[in-house]
Amino acid sequence: MRFSVDEYHARVAKAQAAMAHEEIAALLLTTEPDFRYFSGFLTRFWESPTRPWYLIIPASGEPVAVIPSIGAELMQATWVKDIRTWQSPDYDDDGVSLLADAIRGLTSAGTRIGVPMGRESALRMPLADYARLQTLLGARRVIDAAALLRRLQCVKSHDEIEAIRAICGVAGRAFDRVPEIAQAGKPLSQVFREFQMALLDEGAEWVSYLAGGAGVGGYGDVISPASDRPLATGDLLMLDTGAVKAGYFCDFDRNWAIGAATPAMLDAHRALHDSIDAGFDAARPRATPSDLSRAIAKSVEQSGFASAGGRLGHGLGMRLTEPPSLIPADDTPLEPGMVLTLEPSAVLAPGRIMVQEEVIVVRENGAEWLTPRAPRELPIIGGAS
Amino acid sequence: MRFSVDEYHARVAKAQAAMAHEEIAALLLTTEPDFRYFSGFLTRFWESPTRPWYLIIPASGEPVAVIPSIGAELMQATWVKDIRTWQSPDYDDDGVSLLADAIRGLTSAGTRIGVPMGRESALRMPLADYARLQTLLGARRVIDAAALLRRLQCVKSHDEIEAIRAICGVAGRAFDRVPEIAQAGKPLSQVFREFQMALLDEGAEWVSYLAGGAGVGGYGDVISPASDRPLATGDLLMLDTGAVKAGYFCDFDRNWAIGAATPAMLDAHRALHDSIDAGFDAARPRATPSDLSRAIAKSVEQSGFASAGGRLGHGLGMRLTEPPSLIPADDTPLEPGMVLTLEPSAVLAPGRIMVQEEVIVVRENGAEWLTPRAPRELPIIGGAS
Repeated sequence: MRFSVDEYHARVAKAQAAMAHEEIAALLLTTEPDFRYFSGFLTRFWESPTRPWYLIIPASGEPVAVIPSIGAELMQATWVKDIRTWQSPDYDDDGVSLLADAIRGLTSAGTRIGVPMGRESALRMPLADYARLQTLLGARRVIDAAALLRRLQCVKSHDEIEAIRAICGVAGRAFDRVPEIAQAGKPLSQVFREFQMALLDEGAEWVSYLAGGAGVGGYGDVISPASDRPLATGDLLMLDTGAVKAGYFCDFDRNWAIGAATPAMLDAHRALHDSIDAGFDAARPRATPSDLSRAIAKSVEQSGFASAGGRLGHGLGMRLTEPPSLIPADDTPLEPGMVLTLEPSAVLAPGRIMVQEEVIVVRENGAEWLTPRAPRELPIIGGAS
Repeated sequence: MRFSVDEYHARVAKAQAAMAHEEIAALLLTTEPDFRYFSGFLTRFWESPTRPWYLIIPASGEPVAVIPSIGAELMQATWVKDIRTWQSPDYDDDGVSLLADAIRGLTSAGTRIGVPMGRESALRMPLADYARLQTLLGARRVIDAAALLRRLQCVKSHDEIEAIRAICGVAGRAFDRVPEIAQAGKPLSQVFREFQMALLDEGAEWVSYLAGGAGVGGYGDVISPASDRPLATGDLLMLDTGAVKAGYFCDFDRNWAIGAATPAMLDAHRALHDSIDAGFDAARPRATPSDLSRAIAKSVEQSGFASAGGRLGHGLGMRLTEPPSLIPADDTPLEPGMVLTLEPSAVLAPGRIMVQEEVIVVRENGAEWLTPRAPRELPIIGGAS
């Protein structure tokens, strides 16, 4: 548990106020970030898909954890006091009746149980067990709590913002070491491995995400793992990382030219840098992600580049990507404490793109950078001297 | 895509034979391992929970991918030819009507659509979209395909086994470097970071899982992230890693005494080593996970130690943990090609345990180690010389 008990009390109190407003008698949470948001339970063991984990937020009082016994020791180190365990995996009843008993004990018949069902949510339990749970809950109706959780989680506390700033600083220092790592002739897969080592060396606790690309005059996409192709003079190299510290992610990238840069690469780098400034300037309370996406897109367009498409940024926190999305359709009013990435792209040639990404937090009077800003000029590694 | 097209053809052919037997007209797959198993689509972008990804396996013919456009470029590098994309996130229709159209085009009304619902499965799409999909599918019934997929995936091909052997080798070499990393006075969190760097340096593409513990005379659990407590003389240190190469996991651990070992630590290490031998000896076609769990438990018991509880091993492959489970209730007949971990534990004192884990593959005439075996004698780091 990396934050104070007060932090978790405040999160539960806000959830319960929203639950009262929506007449929800209990929230049932099954995913790692939702579970950790209220409990502080931090473990990489969620990587194992075998066992389900359940957290119940009642209408009043403290959370109840219904978990496999393998997690009891670690759960006792959190602030959660009501911990109910079973020996999982159990092929006859993998915690479902224990969970149903807990929910029934905390709620009355005829009430509504909130489960995230809307966009960007998923249920981390077998569908067959979910069907059985609904039967066992009897006259209680399951309703969608995705929007409720989204509203709570997209506004970060002081401690959350500082956690994100810390991991952004770690990644910034690792990015500064890339000129020592990435040279012409070295396979991209080796660059990826060494960059992850630099992230860990600079203080990342683990590296949940690294993507990137390298290609002459631009790369093809931004979600590929590394190939074994050696870096070559004229390549545009990009690394985009979601490293983790204290359970919070960074998500930003950096670009470099290997040996030499074309005018298009240099121009695109300045254009995307300026478009991120445009997004930064637009970010203030009551503006919307739609406003920011339009400001960024307009700036890219005015520079003469076409956008590569897709959203132009997103929320960030306990997940690599969170709501809101910087798309024209997203009219969520921005609030102080929202952490956003600004992520424009430009097409340099058919199938050759450049992407830049930075992280900001919305404050009362505007935005603040959480990433050490990239330079406006594209850095060239190992250029002629 | 790390394997040959023949490998994916064979996987689809086996699935379609099983589908014919169960009268399933199409499989709908939503999770990373299920999606990758048939398509070869390998990206860490699944770390972003924003967008759903869908793969359909029809009763005959090749897979159909229904995916966000951000993945189109990478998907075109796989063997999948029928790729249908939409611009995600789309708040009005995030791929659901496109997916329903695809399924309707591949199946007749009145047929059955297989979706994993049983144990160790989850649906990686919003529940609200799943409900809408079922409506759009009309007179098609969704049935559980978890067991079908489990049977297919638990038997590994030659290429899969060699991929698991390769990452086990990487982790084995990294474990050999722990005496250089773990010294009394160094915080456990620093040991965790440096060990992940060693894994990457030895060839891991990424490190999806690391847990462990350290404590005087034993550790408390095996799923905790690292604390900042410095290692101290008399500690039992354990590191347990799920590193990844070519999309396949290892999952095994090693133990060390820091400076000095108690007789209980030395005895427990030998006892667990011997119990893993007992599991190895019991592993052959037609034996069951239940048989192996009993052989291992009996060996631990005969050495005078109590087990710390929980299962005594599990399947391994594209996931850190997979079916089957080494528990008395699992009577899956073992087959050649099944990869299993053997993972016994012993209680050294109240709240102080030791766990050992190795990886084997079942062959026609018995088992074969995929991990470089731990020594029977507990290694002592920095002992009196």
